[in-house]
Amino acid sequence: MKVKFKSRRLTAEAYTTGILKKDRVILSQAITLVESKLASDNNLAEEVINNIIPHTGNSLRIGITGVPGVGKSTFIESFGKYLTSKGKKLAVLTIDPSSQRSKGSILGDKTRMEELSNDPNAYVRPSASGTTLGGIHSKTRETILLCEAAGFDVILIETVGVGQSETSVKGLVDFFLLLMLSNAGDELQGIKRGIMEMADAIAINKVDGDNLQKGQLAKRQYQNALHMFPPNPNGWVPKVSTCSAIQNDGVEAIWKMIADFETAMKQNGFFEGNRKQQNLDWMQETIKYHLETDFYNHPEVKKAMEPMKELVINEKSPAITVAKRLLALYHENSNES
Amino acid sequence: MKVKFKSRRLTAEAYTTGILKKDRVILSQAITLVESKLASDNNLAEEVINNIIPHTGNSLRIGITGVPGVGKSTFIESFGKYLTSKGKKLAVLTIDPSSQRSKGSILGDKTRMEELSNDPNAYVRPSASGTTLGGIHSKTRETILLCEAAGFDVILIETVGVGQSETSVKGLVDFFLLLMLSNAGDELQGIKRGIMEMADAIAINKVDGDNLQKGQLAKRQYQNALHMFPPNPNGWVPKVSTCSAIQNDGVEAIWKMIADFETAMKQNGFFEGNRKQQNLDWMQETIKYHLETDFYNHPEVKKAMEPMKELVINEKSPAITVAKRLLALYHENSNES
Repeated sequence: MKVKFKSRRLTAEAYTTGILKKDRVILSQAITLVESKLASDNNLAEEVINNIIPHTGNSLRIGITGVPGVGKSTFIESFGKYLTSKGKKLAVLTIDPSSQRSKGSILGDKTRMEELSNDPNAYVRPSASGTTLGGIHSKTRETILLCEAAGFDVILIETVGVGQSETSVKGLVDFFLLLMLSNAGDELQGIKRGIMEMADAIAINKVDGDNLQKGQLAKRQYQNALHMFPPNPNGWVPKVSTCSAIQNDGVEAIWKMIADFETAMKQNGFFEGNRKQQNLDWMQETIKYHLETDFYNHPEVKKAMEPMKELVINEKSPAITVAKRLLALYHENSNES
Repeated sequence: MKVKFKSRRLTAEAYTTGILKKDRVILSQAITLVESKLASDNNLAEEVINNIIPHTGNSLRIGITGVPGVGKSTFIESFGKYLTSKGKKLAVLTIDPSSQRSKGSILGDKTRMEELSNDPNAYVRPSASGTTLGGIHSKTRETILLCEAAGFDVILIETVGVGQSETSVKGLVDFFLLLMLSNAGDELQGIKRGIMEMADAIAINKVDGDNLQKGQLAKRQYQNALHMFPPNPNGWVPKVSTCSAIQNDGVEAIWKMIADFETAMKQNGFFEGNRKQQNLDWMQETIKYHLETDFYNHPEVKKAMEPMKELVINEKSPAITVAKRLLALYHENSNES
């Protein structure tokens, strides 16, 4: 195995072999490689992804979202421990919008999911939410593939539900679970509009002790609210469950519901269809990202952009005229760039 | 006034003068020009839009959506007659997804809003939902501007709520009204997911006779459902009203609510802020549209697209690799095109 110590990078073959041998250390290094912004790393990462792609796609990908305070870590610990007790191999990817700023979140995530982090059948890894090459979640997509090649059969992707990430997480997963609290509605203050309609299920957490009655009320309220949404094309009616993750209560029922979803979607063909569509979307998003990055970073376009925007915002010129002028600038000067 | 009979087109000056003089015939001809797909017409249309833009922006733009059967035409007749009786000048643009196929829809719209069509203070015009230059609704946007320059101070944009058009209509209007029926939920079968969260208000129509009680129940159900959504950043809490358009009942209250919305949004600055953002979005959508059209219509890209898509859909290659290969094909060959 040829290891270049200077860049602390392995060869593509070494990453590939290590991942397929389920070597956690190499898996972690490969994820770091995938998340790197260096052009040389990008090429190496692409080679690794190309190598492992025949070994991917065999997991169930679950998105879990909830605002801070809803008990996500406790839920994932309880849910995760249940899954590993059933013989599942579980990877947890946490997308922390702050992880770009504070390097501390890696330690933070491992601390807040301590039991799971020490479980030999679980793997907890924060995923940077960088908006680098290929759109907002290309790194997370590739990390999912790496984890699948390393033999994980359930992948949880955790987000906080307050930013842009959730709408794109929906495009990464097979099932989208929204965690809520019993004081129905209050925590919505923090949540991004549109998330509710994306949920395949809502789990009301912390339904224990004095909260039992409130939890049942919230369950009915959310059920009524979900009934007001147009039906899913896949025929799935979003479910509402209650649980107390801290007491390991209700977690098994949630897994059963997700397993029912998987069975139903595999029977009606929507599981595979959704995956195919997600792949295609990913390709198109990547193309869009590169075309727009080229355009908006073009020096002539950059120079003209602010005054042009002013014209449009203040309705001095129609948007179409300004767009065409910027496009003309781009095309006139693109042979030289 | 120089009229070219062969192309049945006026000069830009003639269109401009005619529109500003509130000449309905010339307004209609200008809309036809704007909707044309001929490159020469596009340039002429752009000139007209540039001329009239200082006279635009002074209307209230209202989107009205509801599935077939909800009573949209009757509602718009009743609501529209109320507005003209209050001295408003009203333009109604109907976006009919079928209008590209059947030329009959123009007559159809005028027949189904007969009273309004004969009202000197109202103007009813079907707007083609073509996906031509500049994205799905650029034609409707320009038509709104033409109507504003012609002195209309309320513009209703009507869509059927079943296709892609609604999410983009939200980007055209100041207020988005969703028409529903008392059998809460049933008509959701036909509606596109995501529309509910876009609504600034829901009006439950046909609440009369035997329907009164059901209407009140539906009102409470929708109010509860809307309460489950995250709040709007503009501070507006979506309202639910009942009405019977055929009996002209409840229509005045709906107008009062919309007027309250306008006042509140103008006070807190969201009215203007939203318009500015819509203009900017329109510019960016136009740019995106042109960049993607150039790319996807490139002969080399077109030739390679289907086999490349197959690779991605069937997970033979990662989407990013395929996207990059297509982008390389595009860039290698773009100097010659």
